[in-house]
Amino acid sequence: MGKSETGIGLVGSGFMGRCHANAFRSVSGLFDVPVEPRLRLLADASGEIARDAAQTLGFERATGDWETLVNDDDVDIVAITAPNILHAPIALAAIKAGKTVYCEKPLSTTAAIAQEMTEAAEAAGIVTMVGFNFQRNPMVKFAREIIASGELGEVTGFRGRHAENYMADPNVPHSFRTDVHGGGALADIGSHIISMARYLLGPMAEVQADCQTIHSTRPKTRNSTERAPVEVDDMTHALVRFESGVRGSLEANWAATARTMDLSWEITGTRGALAFTQERMNELSFWSGRPGRNGYTKIEAGPAHPPYGQFCPAPGHHLGFNDLKVIEVAELLTAHSSGGTCSPDFREAYEVQRAVEAMQQSHANRQWVSL
Amino acid sequence: MGKSETGIGLVGSGFMGRCHANAFRSVSGLFDVPVEPRLRLLADASGEIARDAAQTLGFERATGDWETLVNDDDVDIVAITAPNILHAPIALAAIKAGKTVYCEKPLSTTAAIAQEMTEAAEAAGIVTMVGFNFQRNPMVKFAREIIASGELGEVTGFRGRHAENYMADPNVPHSFRTDVHGGGALADIGSHIISMARYLLGPMAEVQADCQTIHSTRPKTRNSTERAPVEVDDMTHALVRFESGVRGSLEANWAATARTMDLSWEITGTRGALAFTQERMNELSFWSGRPGRNGYTKIEAGPAHPPYGQFCPAPGHHLGFNDLKVIEVAELLTAHSSGGTCSPDFREAYEVQRAVEAMQQSHANRQWVSL
Amino acid sequence: MGKSETGIGLVGSGFMGRCHANAFRSVSGLFDVPVEPRLRLLADASGEIARDAAQTLGFERATGDWETLVNDDDVDIVAITAPNILHAPIALAAIKAGKTVYCEKPLSTTAAIAQEMTEAAEAAGIVTMVGFNFQRNPMVKFAREIIASGELGEVTGFRGRHAENYMADPNVPHSFRTDVHGGGALADIGSHIISMARYLLGPMAEVQADCQTIHSTRPKTRNSTERAPVEVDDMTHALVRFESGVRGSLEANWAATARTMDLSWEITGTRGALAFTQERMNELSFWSGRPGRNGYTKIEAGPAHPPYGQFCPAPGHHLGFNDLKVIEVAELLTAHSSGGTCSPDFREAYEVQRAVEAMQQSHANRQWVSL
Amino acid sequence: MGKSETGIGLVGSGFMGRCHANAFRSVSGLFDVPVEPRLRLLADASGEIARDAAQTLGFERATGDWETLVNDDDVDIVAITAPNILHAPIALAAIKAGKTVYCEKPLSTTAAIAQEMTEAAEAAGIVTMVGFNFQRNPMVKFAREIIASGELGEVTGFRGRHAENYMADPNVPHSFRTDVHGGGALADIGSHIISMARYLLGPMAEVQADCQTIHSTRPKTRNSTERAPVEVDDMTHALVRFESGVRGSLEANWAATARTMDLSWEITGTRGALAFTQERMNELSFWSGRPGRNGYTKIEAGPAHPPYGQFCPAPGHHLGFNDLKVIEVAELLTAHSSGGTCSPDFREAYEVQRAVEAMQQSHANRQWVSL
Repeated sequence: MGKSETGIGLVGSGFMGRCHANAFRSVSGLFDVPVEPRLRLLADASGEIARDAAQTLGFERATGDWETLVNDDDVDIVAITAPNILHAPIALAAIKAGKTVYCEKPLSTTAAIAQEMTEAAEAAGIVTMVGFNFQRNPMVKFAREIIASGELGEVTGFRGRHAENYMADPNVPHSFRTDVHGGGALADIGSHIISMARYLLGPMAEVQADCQTIHSTRPKTRNSTERAPVEVDDMTHALVRFESGVRGSLEANWAATARTMDLSWEITGTRGALAFTQERMNELSFWSGRPGRNGYTKIEAGPAHPPYGQFCPAPGHHLGFNDLKVIEVAELLTAHSSGGTCSPDFREAYEVQRAVEAMQQSHANRQWVSL
Repeated sequence: MGKSETGIGLVGSGFMGRCHANAFRSVSGLFDVPVEPRLRLLADASGEIARDAAQTLGFERATGDWETLVNDDDVDIVAITAPNILHAPIALAAIKAGKTVYCEKPLSTTAAIAQEMTEAAEAAGIVTMVGFNFQRNPMVKFAREIIASGELGEVTGFRGRHAENYMADPNVPHSFRTDVHGGGALADIGSHIISMARYLLGPMAEVQADCQTIHSTRPKTRNSTERAPVEVDDMTHALVRFESGVRGSLEANWAATARTMDLSWEITGTRGALAFTQERMNELSFWSGRPGRNGYTKIEAGPAHPPYGQFCPAPGHHLGFNDLKVIEVAELLTAHSSGGTCSPDFREAYEVQRAVEAMQQSHANRQWVSL
Repeated sequence: MGKSETGIGLVGSGFMGRCHANAFRSVSGLFDVPVEPRLRLLADASGEIARDAAQTLGFERATGDWETLVNDDDVDIVAITAPNILHAPIALAAIKAGKTVYCEKPLSTTAAIAQEMTEAAEAAGIVTMVGFNFQRNPMVKFAREIIASGELGEVTGFRGRHAENYMADPNVPHSFRTDVHGGGALADIGSHIISMARYLLGPMAEVQADCQTIHSTRPKTRNSTERAPVEVDDMTHALVRFESGVRGSLEANWAATARTMDLSWEITGTRGALAFTQERMNELSFWSGRPGRNGYTKIEAGPAHPPYGQFCPAPGHHLGFNDLKVIEVAELLTAHSSGGTCSPDFREAYEVQRAVEAMQQSHANRQWVSL
Repeated sequence: MGKSETGIGLVGSGFMGRCHANAFRSVSGLFDVPVEPRLRLLADASGEIARDAAQTLGFERATGDWETLVNDDDVDIVAITAPNILHAPIALAAIKAGKTVYCEKPLSTTAAIAQEMTEAAEAAGIVTMVGFNFQRNPMVKFAREIIASGELGEVTGFRGRHAENYMADPNVPHSFRTDVHGGGALADIGSHIISMARYLLGPMAEVQADCQTIHSTRPKTRNSTERAPVEVDDMTHALVRFESGVRGSLEANWAATARTMDLSWEITGTRGALAFTQERMNELSFWSGRPGRNGYTKIEAGPAHPPYGQFCPAPGHHLGFNDLKVIEVAELLTAHSSGGTCSPDFREAYEVQRAVEAMQQSHANRQWVSL
């Protein structure tokens, strides 16, 4: 006898929409999920776009209206990969309709709206998940377990970064990213290193940041010769103090010419240390005392690092970026089915957004800001 | 209006069977394939095993009899992930039934049987593909294009290796791998570096190998205290001469204690060089003259390296092992639909097997062997 | 006909004293220096210690009194490797005696005293040099030339660090390093990354730092069971703004469990980037646009990077730490002979000390401090 | 009272001559050697060349005639850095004169002559040393101790290489290196990886090699437009079997376009493994079982690896190539003073040469050759 089915409604069919679709298609062949996801309905900006995407991605039906999707009886989980500005209205409508909500990051354009979304979901007892998929990496989960076990001793220092180069060219035009509501490098990718730092070390207590706009104007649109001012940061450096007492620094940078995916950190403890970069996402550098043999050990991903084994029974067979989304979706389906919670959920995403805004405020005021 | 459908019949549901199933499920959401694969029928050692697997992997029907599968009218492509010894009978029956055949490596247990399979497929005009999936890596394809373009000058040297540690422990018991028909490290993973060397540099002309059995006995079965002699190699080192005049060496080693996936090579030319290891499968090390700035450049995988862009529009978002299988399946479906050819097909896999046997023979006779 | 001789007087015979002696002994066999250094006189805490050291290190004479040394007619250059607290009196006396002064870092225990020393030397027209030897590395000099040439475009970001683990153990006892005049991690090794940042990118305009004492007490002396409070930082993270407009961050950390010599930085420009770590001091990572071939290139030290060629005519033959001191001494002898200037001289070392104190002050006041 | 003095006579003042001189000048300030070396006499091809070099390198006297040097009463140790063809006559004369002989590698142009030199030295009870300085690296010595301790279990495999690019350009002219007596890549740098393999794993029993001349002609001299045929190998790949039963492969390559100093190896045992490359000579990669934490550990050179501590009391302060020569000279002086033996001595260098010739012979005859 088969599993019960869960209907998936996807809003948006860009890069992240495709990622979601692929993950829902693959998940039950890789994970022992309690329900079988069915790709019921896809919504996009128009009916035509939606119909084309539905066929490509394997959805049964399509609509040009996300409100239709949110209220469709066959849809149990609403997956939101629409532009950031739409996250709130779609999520709030889905919460009202009693659907599980799976939203891409950033949760919203301001912490205040994210808080509203969080409170609405909690009041309604809705399962939520936000797509900070980098922290689904088995090696990051493994790092968290090592830290929690005390194997590193007391953690003393943190140094993190998310640096890419997709906005390094001053002729990359304006988009939702450079919109003041979009938030700049700090909101766009700084949120990844902030969420990962929280995942590994807990909440932050105080921050002090320096935000900088490197390219002060950008073309208004892709083919435009007119340029408009940029009001968001291209690069932010911040000092951070965690509630636990750990201190450190982090950087968000989307103009890091030489980097495509330097989401990286080093965490030092009194008896050991860990270092990681998403540039080599299947490795974790681990240091713990071994007299006469001290040094960073390069641990390669394998079945010893769940849920790697769901993808391959042997070590050394790398996971890829899209696999992280499958892991995320497996956790979502389990929580959806059991009425449990996901992590990161809306509340966690709201906390990340609070940290982003605290950094922006500390920059504006040139002073430390408590969270 | 949708694409036409193609029925998939899968024989075997172990690690590779799961890989195949996942790839067929995912492919049309990622690639613009000409046909939509449908998971029609799964065969395994018994009806019960097959039924369980069919449900997990998403197949419509199941059977305990591969002959039924091969002759099923709904099955257009027969995917073979059964034990090596069964590759030949299944493939020959599938060829006879006019089905496209997609077989895991090694194609067969001997080059002679592989030749028979190849000739049968060619006589029947059957599309075939063999699963040497490591060479589907966009960075390996990119390397091939660089070499072919002449950018490295004339190629002068090759040094390759496939080293893992899955048989390093002397208490790993006998299995099909250590069966004399299985072939040992050289046949099992040496075939990967041989196929990749051929893909990059063309056919080999002469070989001289030294095969060694490191652990001379192994437990008869997993829980057995009785041990039986091992007759296959754990490690082979070989000198190779390519038809092009390039010379070099290669190693196959499944007792390489410190290695989980060192499928690696360096190719040197008169004006440049390339180095690669599957341990960091999303990177290619590239050297070409840049006076005052000479050195290996670490090129990171991205959309500039097709078909990476099918998985992600931005660089730095790693592909994983399972993604290579999706690439393979996309090529298979295209060839199946167009009546074209795949590479590596049965003939190519037969040539790899010939090289393996030439190495074994050179070891036995302590002399160079021409291919 | 031989070169004229220059008499060397060395104060102190610890690790750095030995380094100096070795450099003076070696330099004229490696560099075409205008004068031949002669090891005339060594001073240490007592006559006995000095006599032993003089014999080992090859000095002609010894004294237990540095004032004797400073005023010795055979001494032309006074090299100071005595405890930090003694730098000022010895240097001021040597300046008064008209000697060239070669002093280890930090120049003094406070910026105010360093300023006094600087002004005394400048007023007397004395050649001075301070031993920030890491910036003698040919790869660092090469980096500076690349930056200055504009090859990276406009520099946009800096991220630097000096992390070691020599004070990571809470039972490492108090010493001159943890004395409040010693200054802690920031003064001891933070000064290296500050001086290197200045060497590469010019002066800093504003800083904001967070200094932390990780181990709040340490044994009073090596064998003591009594512990005394620590008042200096073990770890400092700082935001920095350079006069040029470049912004970034830096870290000083002597409790970095996993690090022995992570004096490292990444400098990003609009068209390229450089990355370096003293952990691999014979390499420079260089990125500049090469469409389809982008990536960090690992440039290996060689004769193309002067003065590497003084040590070896072929690339790939690493320089070591002690070689950096030989380079330093060669520059010192040239400046001494020609009446030119060295870099870093007292003024530069004073500027480094000003930056250290600005960071300490910004921490104390929790606000940005202008330099 | 000082140490007794030992007179050094150096023949040759090229790159290696300078290295020797520098090492003799530095050694007693770094090592507690039993005698103080004095640079008495330098010989080179003419009196004028010798006089200039003597002044630069700090020798007391000079001569254009090596026979004079060998028989000079003030000379106790004869250091030979003259062209290979002169090693034998100079060494034999020095042996006859009862001097300690310190000769650069290769010991001679043929194994037969090397044997004659070895026997002469042994008959006369002469202390000899040959300059295979790469094996003086503390990390290589450390590797040897790990292997000898059994920590890796039983050694099962070896893979080694010495690859550089100094002859990669076909317009590098003929020289002593490409002379048939010089021996090609195998003799010139293959001897380094052979000697290191012997140092780590003991003698070889059997070899099978493939030698290739990549550039079949080279200019007769530096500015010549005439080209002459090349009769030596540019690249050799070899299979090797050690007396211990270990098997593996090695490569010598002086046309390795992308490499400046890839003297590297991996040694695998049943319980662990080591990997090293001279490209990062201050690191050793070490693997030994640590369940759940397996992986290569990057051990950084430090005082735990004697004689590193002679150069620096703290880890992370790299040694350089020239420091290896200082270590060599310290061992030479100790053996000279105590009447002990050095390693590698003439006999060891002769064994290396035997292995080179066995490889050449196996190539010529296309068969395995026993040693």
